[in-house]
Amino acid sequence: MSNKIDVAILGATGSVGQKFIELLSNHPWFNIAEVAASDRSAGKKYSEATNWIMQSPLNKNIAELIVKNSEPNLKSKIVFSALDASVAGEIEENFAKNGYVVISNARNHRFDEDVPLLVPEVNYQHIDLIHQQKFGDGFIITNPNCSTIGLVMALKPLHDNFEIEAVNVVTMQAVSGGGYPGVPSMDIIDNVIPFISGEEDKMEKEPKKIFGNLINNKIEFANFKISASCNRVPVIDGHTEIVQVKLKSKPAKDEIINVWKNFSSEPQKLNLPFAPSKPTTYFDVEKYPQPKLHRNIDKGMAVAIGRLRDCSILDYKFVILSHNTIRGAAGGAILIAELLKSKGYLDKYL
Amino acid sequence: MSNKIDVAILGATGSVGQKFIELLSNHPWFNIAEVAASDRSAGKKYSEATNWIMQSPLNKNIAELIVKNSEPNLKSKIVFSALDASVAGEIEENFAKNGYVVISNARNHRFDEDVPLLVPEVNYQHIDLIHQQKFGDGFIITNPNCSTIGLVMALKPLHDNFEIEAVNVVTMQAVSGGGYPGVPSMDIIDNVIPFISGEEDKMEKEPKKIFGNLINNKIEFANFKISASCNRVPVIDGHTEIVQVKLKSKPAKDEIINVWKNFSSEPQKLNLPFAPSKPTTYFDVEKYPQPKLHRNIDKGMAVAIGRLRDCSILDYKFVILSHNTIRGAAGGAILIAELLKSKGYLDKYL
Amino acid sequence: MSNKIDVAILGATGSVGQKFIELLSNHPWFNIAEVAASDRSAGKKYSEATNWIMQSPLNKNIAELIVKNSEPNLKSKIVFSALDASVAGEIEENFAKNGYVVISNARNHRFDEDVPLLVPEVNYQHIDLIHQQKFGDGFIITNPNCSTIGLVMALKPLHDNFEIEAVNVVTMQAVSGGGYPGVPSMDIIDNVIPFISGEEDKMEKEPKKIFGNLINNKIEFANFKISASCNRVPVIDGHTEIVQVKLKSKPAKDEIINVWKNFSSEPQKLNLPFAPSKPTTYFDVEKYPQPKLHRNIDKGMAVAIGRLRDCSILDYKFVILSHNTIRGAAGGAILIAELLKSKGYLDKYL
Amino acid sequence: MSNKIDVAILGATGSVGQKFIELLSNHPWFNIAEVAASDRSAGKKYSEATNWIMQSPLNKNIAELIVKNSEPNLKSKIVFSALDASVAGEIEENFAKNGYVVISNARNHRFDEDVPLLVPEVNYQHIDLIHQQKFGDGFIITNPNCSTIGLVMALKPLHDNFEIEAVNVVTMQAVSGGGYPGVPSMDIIDNVIPFISGEEDKMEKEPKKIFGNLINNKIEFANFKISASCNRVPVIDGHTEIVQVKLKSKPAKDEIINVWKNFSSEPQKLNLPFAPSKPTTYFDVEKYPQPKLHRNIDKGMAVAIGRLRDCSILDYKFVILSHNTIRGAAGGAILIAELLKSKGYLDKYL
Repeated sequence: MSNKIDVAILGATGSVGQKFIELLSNHPWFNIAEVAASDRSAGKKYSEATNWIMQSPLNKNIAELIVKNSEPNLKSKIVFSALDASVAGEIEENFAKNGYVVISNARNHRFDEDVPLLVPEVNYQHIDLIHQQKFGDGFIITNPNCSTIGLVMALKPLHDNFEIEAVNVVTMQAVSGGGYPGVPSMDIIDNVIPFISGEEDKMEKEPKKIFGNLINNKIEFANFKISASCNRVPVIDGHTEIVQVKLKSKPAKDEIINVWKNFSSEPQKLNLPFAPSKPTTYFDVEKYPQPKLHRNIDKGMAVAIGRLRDCSILDYKFVILSHNTIRGAAGGAILIAELLKSKGYLDKYL
Repeated sequence: MSNKIDVAILGATGSVGQKFIELLSNHPWFNIAEVAASDRSAGKKYSEATNWIMQSPLNKNIAELIVKNSEPNLKSKIVFSALDASVAGEIEENFAKNGYVVISNARNHRFDEDVPLLVPEVNYQHIDLIHQQKFGDGFIITNPNCSTIGLVMALKPLHDNFEIEAVNVVTMQAVSGGGYPGVPSMDIIDNVIPFISGEEDKMEKEPKKIFGNLINNKIEFANFKISASCNRVPVIDGHTEIVQVKLKSKPAKDEIINVWKNFSSEPQKLNLPFAPSKPTTYFDVEKYPQPKLHRNIDKGMAVAIGRLRDCSILDYKFVILSHNTIRGAAGGAILIAELLKSKGYLDKYL
Repeated sequence: MSNKIDVAILGATGSVGQKFIELLSNHPWFNIAEVAASDRSAGKKYSEATNWIMQSPLNKNIAELIVKNSEPNLKSKIVFSALDASVAGEIEENFAKNGYVVISNARNHRFDEDVPLLVPEVNYQHIDLIHQQKFGDGFIITNPNCSTIGLVMALKPLHDNFEIEAVNVVTMQAVSGGGYPGVPSMDIIDNVIPFISGEEDKMEKEPKKIFGNLINNKIEFANFKISASCNRVPVIDGHTEIVQVKLKSKPAKDEIINVWKNFSSEPQKLNLPFAPSKPTTYFDVEKYPQPKLHRNIDKGMAVAIGRLRDCSILDYKFVILSHNTIRGAAGGAILIAELLKSKGYLDKYL
Repeated sequence: MSNKIDVAILGATGSVGQKFIELLSNHPWFNIAEVAASDRSAGKKYSEATNWIMQSPLNKNIAELIVKNSEPNLKSKIVFSALDASVAGEIEENFAKNGYVVISNARNHRFDEDVPLLVPEVNYQHIDLIHQQKFGDGFIITNPNCSTIGLVMALKPLHDNFEIEAVNVVTMQAVSGGGYPGVPSMDIIDNVIPFISGEEDKMEKEPKKIFGNLINNKIEFANFKISASCNRVPVIDGHTEIVQVKLKSKPAKDEIINVWKNFSSEPQKLNLPFAPSKPTTYFDVEKYPQPKLHRNIDKGMAVAIGRLRDCSILDYKFVILSHNTIRGAAGGAILIAELLKSKGYLDKYL
C-alpha cells in the first residue's frame, strides 16, 4: 500500500459512501486511509457504524478503521465527499479552506462560479476553474447529478459534431438513486412515481454549465433548451433515459452512430484506471439498452445507447442507460480524482 | 336475465377475452350468452378451456358455457372481439358480412376508411361512418390501442379549447398490455424494456384519425404532429404517460386544469353504465398520478392527470395514467356498445 | 351519522391508522369522530398531518378532522389503537384506566394475564377475561400479530375436530406488514429477506394463548408445539404461509377439507358486518392460493387455503394466505369491536 | 485454444444452454467447439438462432458457430446436455451409445440405476457407477435439480458428522429456474406462486440417491425422511431454502457451524477451476443469506448459510441460498466435467 495515495471518504456510512469504499477497495492508485461521518458514528469501528448494503463483502481492513469526525484534521489530503446535501456545503468549504482537495458528489457547490462541475470525458478543461477558488491551498470539484452524467456523455459527441439546439429527456430512474433507506418498497413495487424532488431542475440546469465555455476564467453557460421529466421505476440500479434532440447541422443517422462509436476523450487518452474504453457504446438491437443487461458495461462507467430514430417533434430520438451509483456517483468522482492525479494537480498534496 | 341483450365474446379464452367476461358479468344491459374461441378450445366447457387469470373469481354460469367456434352462426348478434390480430381481420369481416355488430379490440380494421376508431368521450360522432360500410347488415367498430385511449381522452378538452399543434409522449406501460403469457418475468423484474413492437407507430397514427373531422362521410385526419416513445416497466396494470403539448392559443395553467376538471361528454350525458363520472380527473398532489394508486379510479374508466407545468420545448408538460385493460381495452369496448345501444343503433339486432 | 357509535383512532397517521380510517369510512355501526396521534401531529388537520398512502381516496370529512393528542380526554369512549409499540403500552393503559374501551393492534398487552388476545372466529369466549381487568371502567382487548391471525383461523377447525399436536410454519410476508416507510425498496426488489425481527417469537407464542382454555378466569395455554420461520418477500399485501400439522386423530384429506369448507363461528352467526361469509375458503386448484389473486376474498377478511397433501415429517401440509393489513390488523380489530357491540359489551359506554 | 478440450453443448439455444456458453467462454480447460439444438435452429449462425438473454455479451467466436443437429456426429466427444426433458432422454442415450461422454442437466436419466446423480462435493465416489453402464464406450452423468444441489451441499457435512434423520425444506425459488420465457410477469410481480410442477417430488427423492452408498456397484438409497414445499417468488436468480433437520447425534450449535466452516471436499482438494473455495459459507448476520447479496459468492458456486437456531419440531433450523443457474445447473455440470478430467476419466476421449 505504501506507494498509493491516501484518501479519505466523508459521509462514509451512507450508500454513496459505501459505493466509494467498494469501488476504491482495490484501486491501483488510491488507498482508503480514513473514513469520516457524523458525530453519531465517529469513534466506532466502520463495520459497526455502517449497515453495509453493497453486494461485494466489506473489505476487512476498512471494516477495522475507526470512523473519524468530518473535520479538517484528517491526514489524507484528498477527500471524496459523499455527504448529505443538508451538511455538505459548509463541511466541504471548511476542508477546502484548510488545504484539502475535495471531490464532491453533493449538489451544494455545483453552481459556485469558481467550482468545476466536471465529467472528465465532457469538460475536463473546466478543471482550470479551481485556480479562481479563494479557499487557500485547497479546492473543491463537483460531480453532477446521477441522471445528468449519462445524458451529457451521450450528448457530448453530438454537440461537438452537430451542435445541439434543444434536448428533451424523460427518465426512468432506479431506486438506488434515492439513497438508503430511500424509496419505501410500499411506494414502488408494482408502481411508477412520476416525480423526484428537485431532479428536473438539476437536469435542466447542470448540462448548461457542463457544456459551457471557459472564457476569461469564467464559464459561459451553453444556451440550448432542455426540458426534463423525471420518474422513479422499480429498478435497483441503472437510469434509463428517453432523449430527443434538435441539431443545428442535420446529420444522417449513420453519422450520429459513428460519432458515438468513435467517441474517446481525455480519460481514454490518459488511460485512467476507471475510464471506460468506449464511453458511448451504441447497440443495434432494437430492444436495447436495458438496465439489467447493460448497467455494468465497461465496469459501470460507460453509457449504453440504442434505438436512434427520426422524431417528428425534434430531429432524432434515442435511449440511453447508465449506472447511477457507479458512473453517476462514486465512479464518476473517482475518475475525476484520477484525472487530477494524472495531470499533476495532486502533486503538491502528497 | 330475460330482458338483457345477449352478447358473445370472440377470443374469449385470452387475457382480453377474460377481462370482457369479468367486466360484463354483472352488466345491467348485456348478458354473456356465448363465448367463442379457436378450434382448439371449441366444444369444451369455458372453465376447462381457459386458464383464468383475473382477480375476481370466474362467474359460475359462464364457467359452464360450452365454447363455440369463432364462426358467424352465433345467436347473439352483438359480438365483442378480443381476437388476436393474427386472425381478427378475416373473422371480424366474416361476422359483419353475416349481419353481426362487431365491437373490436383488435388493430386490423382500425384504419379501414369506413370503420370508426372510437373513444366515446372523444369522437362519438364518428359512429356514423358505419353507414358507409358495405358488409350488408352488420358493421365493425374498433377501439384504439390501450396506450392511445388515455392520451386522446386527456387531449380532447385541450384540443377543443386551445387547439393542439404538437404532442410528445413517452410511455411507461404495464405488462398486462402484452397479453398472457406475454412479457417473461426474467425480462422485466428489475428492468425496463425501451421497446414495444408496433406501439409507437400506433400511438403516432391513431390520434390523428380519432381527432379527425367527419366531412362528407369521410374522416379528414387531424394534422398536429405526434412523437411517441414506448417503454415497458415492471407494473401489472396501468399505463403512465409523460405528455408534452404545444397549443395554438396559449392558455394559463389554471385554464387547462379547469377544462380537465369540467370535461364531460356524450357518455356522461347519456349516463352510460360504464361512463366515468369525471373522464379526466386532475390531481394537485405533485407525486400523482401513480398506477398503483389511481388505475382504478371511476372503476378504471377515467384518466388520472397531474403535474401540469411549463415546458421549455413545447408549451406544457403533464403526466397521465389510465387502466390499460379496462379503459384501454375491454371497458372501452363495452362503453362503445353502451353508446350504440343508448343511441338506438342496436335496435334492429335485438 | 347520528345513530352510529362514535369511535376514535389512536396513532391515526401511521399505515395501520390509515387502514382503520379507510375501512371504517363507511361502516354501518361506527363513526370516526376523532383521530389522535403524537404531539407532532396534534392540532393539524388530518389531511395535513398524514402522508395518505391508502389506495382509496381519503374521506373528506375525516380529512378535515383536527388531530388530537393521544390522551384520555376524547369524547368517543371506543378507541382503536394503531399506536407504535414504543408508546402503546402506557397510553393504552391510561385510556383503559380512564374508562375507555381500547381495541389494540399493538403487541404490548397481548400477554397480560387479564387481556384477551382475540380472533373472533377462534376464541370469542376469551372476551370474558376483561372482567378480571383492574383498570376501573375501561378495558383493553388485543389483536394478534398479522402472521398469527391467518394461521390460527386455518388451524381452528382442525384443532376442534382432530386436535393439533404440532405445527410448523414458514411464512412469506408482504412488505406492508413492515409499516411505512418500512422495508426499503433497495432491500427487497429482486430479493428475499429471511428474517423479520421478533416475528418468529410472536408466531410461536400467540397461538398457544389464543387456543388456550379459559378456566377459573385464567387462560391455560395450549400445549402443542410450534416452530415458525419468517421471511419477507416482494409482495405488497398478503402473507402466504406454508403450514405442516400433526393431528392426534388421523383424518382423511377429505375430512380436513370438509371442516374448512363448513367452518363458521360466532361472527358468522351474529352476522357481523366485517365477518367473512366463509372464514376458511379451500381452493382445489393446485397453484392456489396466491396473494395477488386471493388477498381480497370476502373483503380481505377470510383465509384462503389450498394444496392440502401428505407430509412425511408431520401428517399434512398445506398453504394459507390472508390479508395482513385487513384481516391481520385493522379489519381484525374492527371485527372485535363489532363482536363487543353485538354482545352488549359496549352498551354502557354509549 | 489448441490444447484445450473441445466440448459441445446440446440444447445450446435455451436459457440453460446459454448459461453453459456464458460460463465456458473463458474456461481454462474446455473449448466450446460445437453447439447443437433442434432442427429448427440447425444450420443457422448461433447468434441468429438464439435470443441471447445472459447479462454478459455473447462471445464473438461462439456467435459465429453454425448450430448443428443434436445427433451423435459431433467431433467433440464431451457434450453438455441442456436439452429439454421432453427430448433429452432419447438423445442423450443415443450419444452415449455412440461413444460420447454426456453430462446432463436434464431429469430423464437421474434415476437410472447405473447413472450417477452427482454433486462433486457430496458424492464424487458415485462416478464409478459409470462402469455399470451398457452404452458401449460412452456414458451419462447427471446433475440434480437446481433446488436439490444447494440443499445436499449444506446437508453433506451435517450428515457426515451427525447423521441426518429427517429434513424439512420450504423453498422460495427464483424465476430463472423456470427457464425462458418461463414464468409470465403477470403471474409473479407482487405475488408468490406456492406450486412448482414436479419440484417437490424431485427434492424429496434426489437427496436419497445422492446420499446413498455405493455397495456392490449399486446405490443403496439413504433412508432419512424428507418433506419439501416449493414456492416461486419474484427473484431473478438464487433459490432461498428454509431447512429444518433432525440429527442422530445432538451437536451444539457451534459444532454445526464449525463443520460448515471447515467443509472441503474432492473438488477443493483437486483445485478444480469451478470449485468454490468454501462450499458452505456460514454468515453470522441474522438477516443473511439473501439472494441479491449472496447468490454470486465464490462465483455462484458456493452455498450461503445463515440463521442456525433451535427448532421445537426437529432439532435445528437454518436458511440456505444458492445460485440456481450456476451452482444449480450449468456451473454444477461443468464442475462434474472438471472432476472427470482431473481424475482421468476423459483421457480416452481426447
